[in-house]
Amino acid sequence: MTYPVYGKISGPIVLIGFGSIGRGVLPLIERHFEYDSHMIHVIDPSDEHANFLAQRGVKFHKKSLTEDNYREILDGFFAANTSGDKQGFCVNLSVDTGSLDIMKHCRDLNTLYIDTVVEPWPGFYFNEDASPAERTNYALRETVRAEKRANPGGTTAVSCCGANPGMVSWFVKEALMHIARDTGQECEQPQNREGWASLMQSLGVKGIHIAERDTQYVREPKPIGTFINTWSVEGFISESFQPAELGWGSHEKWMPENAHKHDKGCQAAIYITYPGALTRVHTWCPTPGPQYGFLVTHNEAISISDYYTVGDAATPDYRPTCHYAYHPCDQAVLSVHEIFGSGAQQKVMKILSEDEIVDGVDELGVLLYGHAKNAYWYGSRLSIKEARTLAPFQNATGLQVTSAVLAGMVWALENPEAGIVETDEMDHKRCLEVQRPYLGPVEGHYTDWTPLSTRWDHFNEEIDTSDPWQFRNILAS
Amino acid sequence: MTYPVYGKISGPIVLIGFGSIGRGVLPLIERHFEYDSHMIHVIDPSDEHANFLAQRGVKFHKKSLTEDNYREILDGFFAANTSGDKQGFCVNLSVDTGSLDIMKHCRDLNTLYIDTVVEPWPGFYFNEDASPAERTNYALRETVRAEKRANPGGTTAVSCCGANPGMVSWFVKEALMHIARDTGQECEQPQNREGWASLMQSLGVKGIHIAERDTQYVREPKPIGTFINTWSVEGFISESFQPAELGWGSHEKWMPENAHKHDKGCQAAIYITYPGALTRVHTWCPTPGPQYGFLVTHNEAISISDYYTVGDAATPDYRPTCHYAYHPCDQAVLSVHEIFGSGAQQKVMKILSEDEIVDGVDELGVLLYGHAKNAYWYGSRLSIKEARTLAPFQNATGLQVTSAVLAGMVWALENPEAGIVETDEMDHKRCLEVQRPYLGPVEGHYTDWTPLSTRWDHFNEEIDTSDPWQFRNILAS
Ligand SMILES: NC(=O)c1ccc[n+]([C@@H]2O[C@H](COP(=O)([O-])OP(=O)(O)OC[C@H]3O[C@@H](n4cnc5c(N)ncnc54)[C@H](O)[C@@H]3O)[C@@H](O)[C@H]2O)c1
Ligand SMILES: NC(=O)c1ccc[n+]([C@@H]2O[C@H](COP(=O)([O-])OP(=O)(O)OC[C@H]3O[C@@H](n4cnc5c(N)ncnc54)[C@H](O)[C@@H]3O)[C@@H](O)[C@H]2O)c1
Repeated sequence: MTYPVYGKISGPIVLIGFGSIGRGVLPLIERHFEYDSHMIHVIDPSDEHANFLAQRGVKFHKKSLTEDNYREILDGFFAANTSGDKQGFCVNLSVDTGSLDIMKHCRDLNTLYIDTVVEPWPGFYFNEDASPAERTNYALRETVRAEKRANPGGTTAVSCCGANPGMVSWFVKEALMHIARDTGQECEQPQNREGWASLMQSLGVKGIHIAERDTQYVREPKPIGTFINTWSVEGFISESFQPAELGWGSHEKWMPENAHKHDKGCQAAIYITYPGALTRVHTWCPTPGPQYGFLVTHNEAISISDYYTVGDAATPDYRPTCHYAYHPCDQAVLSVHEIFGSGAQQKVMKILSEDEIVDGVDELGVLLYGHAKNAYWYGSRLSIKEARTLAPFQNATGLQVTSAVLAGMVWALENPEAGIVETDEMDHKRCLEVQRPYLGPVEGHYTDWTPLSTRWDHFNEEIDTSDPWQFRNILAS
Repeated sequence: MTYPVYGKISGPIVLIGFGSIGRGVLPLIERHFEYDSHMIHVIDPSDEHANFLAQRGVKFHKKSLTEDNYREILDGFFAANTSGDKQGFCVNLSVDTGSLDIMKHCRDLNTLYIDTVVEPWPGFYFNEDASPAERTNYALRETVRAEKRANPGGTTAVSCCGANPGMVSWFVKEALMHIARDTGQECEQPQNREGWASLMQSLGVKGIHIAERDTQYVREPKPIGTFINTWSVEGFISESFQPAELGWGSHEKWMPENAHKHDKGCQAAIYITYPGALTRVHTWCPTPGPQYGFLVTHNEAISISDYYTVGDAATPDYRPTCHYAYHPCDQAVLSVHEIFGSGAQQKVMKILSEDEIVDGVDELGVLLYGHAKNAYWYGSRLSIKEARTLAPFQNATGLQVTSAVLAGMVWALENPEAGIVETDEMDHKRCLEVQRPYLGPVEGHYTDWTPLSTRWDHFNEEIDTSDPWQFRNILAS
């Protein structure tokens, strides 16, 4: 099998964090880029994989990046190339590191940068002195947007380029083109943000779920006291305990009592003073059909609603609702039930690995609803079996993420002076072209399901029958 | 191995329903009673086990008992003995049959009767025209209590004598004696209801959780579209969709906004217009420690609060709070998540059988809280491994139920003219004596846990710090 080489990374490549995603990205980097094999590095406080890295000729640095040492450490790798003709690449796939600080410093060092989440330095997620508003992804994202406004252009830094946030923003654009085609409104692909936003508006899309069902499973039951997931347990726990958050559409007539708007920034989102992983929404995926999803906060819920806004921030003419509706793998559902019930984090954290997973699919897509054909799910239905044939060292969830990182790296290499960008702002065609070989079946499915069609009628829920797609109906009461 | 024979059943024995509990009861009846082997019958609309029954010489009648035919069918078995010296036994272990009607008719026929739940004829649980109040267990129980008042004494009919409702009422009495002993208030065993109620009051017990954790598991994952449980799936689904209900203690200062009192009947309970299986409470069991339980409505929540009431019904001097706090097996937790999320009952129902369960324990007890030693869990921690050694054709959950049915049958045989009784009204010592060999380790555990000790502090929950044992704190917000 031969693989396309997408370009040359002329300076050092530094992976920060070698967890489930870092381990999966490495073989894709090896496969798809040209680079000096002496110049690839991994930084991680855990040396669990030191031997594996040594055997592959990757330099391992057993270190925690901290607020105090990150400049010095990054300088060590990249300072020599600042004014030279070599450009390095910093690939941040860690938890507990300040994405914005690292991104800024990389740009100062003329170093390309990519991450999959706006991650804060430790202490943010569980800070009991912080208000719920301060613990939102809205607050985290605004720091990156402010930096983009303050320092436009310059060395490319790609923010939040995993599966979601990341790939799903590219799916939204594909889905819009499909809906336009299938509803007789076929058009040229829009060339800028305004064009995309007005296309979504003209199609009558009221909102978007990032609708995911992960059915990957193992033979052994979940032991009491172990949190199990198919990707970062620490990452998932953090977001599970953040307030639920969602991009807030202009069609919404009702807001939960414990929901709050923001008065600064893009104003595209609201937050709910309740943990995301306890906030259930009615949603839909191809395999299960209607299901509960957890309204866990995610960067893309905010960025997508922001990107597709028509009119001004506070009183838009149009804006879609957008949020995550996540049904993680069953053992993660049980882990969430356990952590909230026990009042303490589990002592053991476990990410299901590609070799122990028996079967299952990570079905991750976007559900665009409210338009002439009701609702359209478009996404990747990658099975563990297919994932195993495509790339080593990762499960299906991992490959959806790492292939998005690959696509983001390719795009950054091809657009090295694009400044700070989110995935909504990238060339989705090019990115999906790079990523697609790793996504298994990528399919579109129309459905006549609405959140009103699958209710249990015995409890007089307060629903809005005048518009099935009101968030009031989507939020499980 | 020899087993005690507790007595002779002189007339026909008729098992109505041959599901997971019926199949488990049969070998206990065979083991512990003397009876004419030609006179044992099973009625069930499903003939799945017809061959099994034929091989054991049990007469199988493939029939549904209905409101129209139940008199005729029961007459066929029992009418001949009404005035004779033979007395039959009707053991009702079915779903979708009207317990009260069957019980009444059995008493008219001088036939002993036992069931494990006040079951209504079909149509009750999912009747969309019925108000939430009409769909409660309170309403069901009141019909039986009214019949007891209207026709006191007479042939014994034991209502709700399974594990819970059933055995747990006997555990409450044992637990009270232990707490009295351990807090220096040792006393003689009370001889009547008033005595028991004032003992509980004097010990300062504020409430009781029926606190259960079922860890039984199988190798195969839960398939999408299958509801899995360790006992009746239909029974569990029905109660999951009934309103949450609980016996309502005199110490409670706050009531949920969607909670309602009753103005007729024993007034010992309230109901919440929200499905029981979506209503989470903070509770505690020995193996997991603090955990979420589902506040599923159960007869014993009402009967126990009623039984231990001091003073009048509407304004009691003392009454404990009492409710179920159920953590079913993990695959049932997932099944509940699925059924509410999908808006439709799963097509396949599956009860995990003793031969496929790999391991696990059904830890079922009563947690008495608010007294001088804080909280005391007392119950059975029966593992599947031990259950297999004790009796055939049932898992650990089943054996806790069927051994309670056995105990109830023995007590009825020994007290054939006790009228209609609930398990609170039976001789708990004698019943536990019969049942105990089937319960595995029966243990008492004090704990310093309270619902305030394991909270996540980031969302300003409205809790009452003045009294940890307020229901406001127990109900998960
Ligand atoms: N956008 C997406 O779709 C997506 C999907 C999955 C994961 N993620 C994010 O990607 C990141 C990595 O995910 P994962 O599944 O590999 O997580 P993981 O928990 O498996 O690994 C995280 C790694 O970071 C390392 N680390 C911790 N502190 C560090 C520090 N101070 N300096 C350097 N390294 C440190 C840990 O030792 C660990 O190896 C997480 O932030 C996660 O939220 C994003
Ligand atoms: N109190 C307790 O602790 C406790 C515990 C478990 C079960 N239960 C109750 O015991 C009963 C039996 O439980 P299970 O696990 O055996 O249930 P199950 O679902 O396995 O079996 C119920 C049986 O009833 C039969 N049935 C249905 N309609 C009937 C009719 N009209 N006439 C006669 N039979 C009919 C079904 O065919 C089935 O075989 C249920 O009501 C359940 O709620 C009580």
